[in-house]
Amino acid sequence: MYRAAKRFLNTFKRKSNTDKRLITAIETIVGSKPLNLYLYRLATLHSSVANVDNRGYKESNERLEYLGDAILGAAIADYLFKKYPFKDEGFLTEIRSRIVNRESLNTLGKRIGLDSIIQYDKNHSSKLSHKSLYGDTLEALVGAVYLDRGFSFCKSFIIEKLIIPYFDIQNIVESDVNFKSKLIEWAQKENHSIEFEIIHIKTEGRHKEFTAEVTVSEEKKGQGYGFSKKKAEQDAAKKTLQLLGLIEKE
Amino acid sequence: MYRAAKRFLNTFKRKSNTDKRLITAIETIVGSKPLNLYLYRLATLHSSVANVDNRGYKESNERLEYLGDAILGAAIADYLFKKYPFKDEGFLTEIRSRIVNRESLNTLGKRIGLDSIIQYDKNHSSKLSHKSLYGDTLEALVGAVYLDRGFSFCKSFIIEKLIIPYFDIQNIVESDVNFKSKLIEWAQKENHSIEFEIIHIKTEGRHKEFTAEVTVSEEKKGQGYGFSKKKAEQDAAKKTLQLLGLIEKE
Repeated sequence: MYRAAKRFLNTFKRKSNTDKRLITAIETIVGSKPLNLYLYRLATLHSSVANVDNRGYKESNERLEYLGDAILGAAIADYLFKKYPFKDEGFLTEIRSRIVNRESLNTLGKRIGLDSIIQYDKNHSSKLSHKSLYGDTLEALVGAVYLDRGFSFCKSFIIEKLIIPYFDIQNIVESDVNFKSKLIEWAQKENHSIEFEIIHIKTEGRHKEFTAEVTVSEEKKGQGYGFSKKKAEQDAAKKTLQLLGLIEKE
Repeated sequence: MYRAAKRFLNTFKRKSNTDKRLITAIETIVGSKPLNLYLYRLATLHSSVANVDNRGYKESNERLEYLGDAILGAAIADYLFKKYPFKDEGFLTEIRSRIVNRESLNTLGKRIGLDSIIQYDKNHSSKLSHKSLYGDTLEALVGAVYLDRGFSFCKSFIIEKLIIPYFDIQNIVESDVNFKSKLIEWAQKENHSIEFEIIHIKTEGRHKEFTAEVTVSEEKKGQGYGFSKKKAEQDAAKKTLQLLGLIEKE
């Protein structure tokens, strides 16, 4: 009985120390203390150390990651929409995907110090499966902040504490990813022939919509669309790179 | 001078009638009158009839569509997260994509009566390019409601006025899309041989992650992942269907 009590108190003490560190970290990262600490505990709990409860339900940060991903997308969509009132949706989509992608979120997660509060199985985990550990946890954190404080607070947190301090948007806008030259480079390196062809032009009122197709070593690959030949080719190149697994799908 | 004035007044009158109809429609669909009517005018303005302003900037509903798409995703993520507290993120992602896809949004757009308020070029537009006219406008409307009334109102609008009345979520959850049998069906019809193979098993702590690969007529197609062989095969079948253009990419 005494032992059980001691064990219970130890557990409590241990948790309490972890919690204290978590509270401090959240206060630093988010700018406010957690209201509902449970959410932040969950956000930092990787599935590799999650316990399965009586119902067979495994509690980890994966559900919060799903939620946070959507909230992050919405907050950044809103931010870019207002920041660039005269840019079209293609531009906004492109810039958002340059900000929110696995690699950049992972880097951001590390930079804000999530490594000190994530709980995961350090022994049984291969490097591969953790290449998005910080990014995933960052998304889960966004989910927790959203549930804890609501959309408006969470949006400010995302913009003021994550985007503005860590992303040089102007630089991101100016850096032009050239998918076509990337694909040509790859083809040359791998000894593949490569061809770009405009296979269809649709006249739509005052506009023309072009369809481009890429052929790699006689094999038809990605098709792309755009209101100029150049844009259609870029899109086709991008889709081909995705098909070939050379860049990630959005 | 008199003519110019008359023309001006006619323009005003015409606009005013269109606006009146728009206000009534928005009140019916959203449940409240617009605060900023401009947003709703823009949301219902298809690019086929959009004017280019002095700066060369074309004003249509496409930017609002981009914003609305993100807000819709966030609102439904939140709704499903809370509705299914013990379901994993794979389930939540799947159900959301069954609710929010081009086809279902398009049907929904028609059902709530967007056809009566969308302004588009009825002469110069092929059917093809308008297969998502209503769905796109619906997203733009969500964007307008969000900017006009804020996230919380917009979320309620989405859930109470769009999702609950028009989607049978229980039915959506229970309908199991079987990609594997869909793919096998297709292969038989098209006289292709088809093979499913587990090509990799990764042991991750207490879990195993399977990688399945589909081969169609000796040609390697989609690879899929899952925590069971069945799930990996379903995923590989789905990706193959996407590669073959038989189902849409998410």
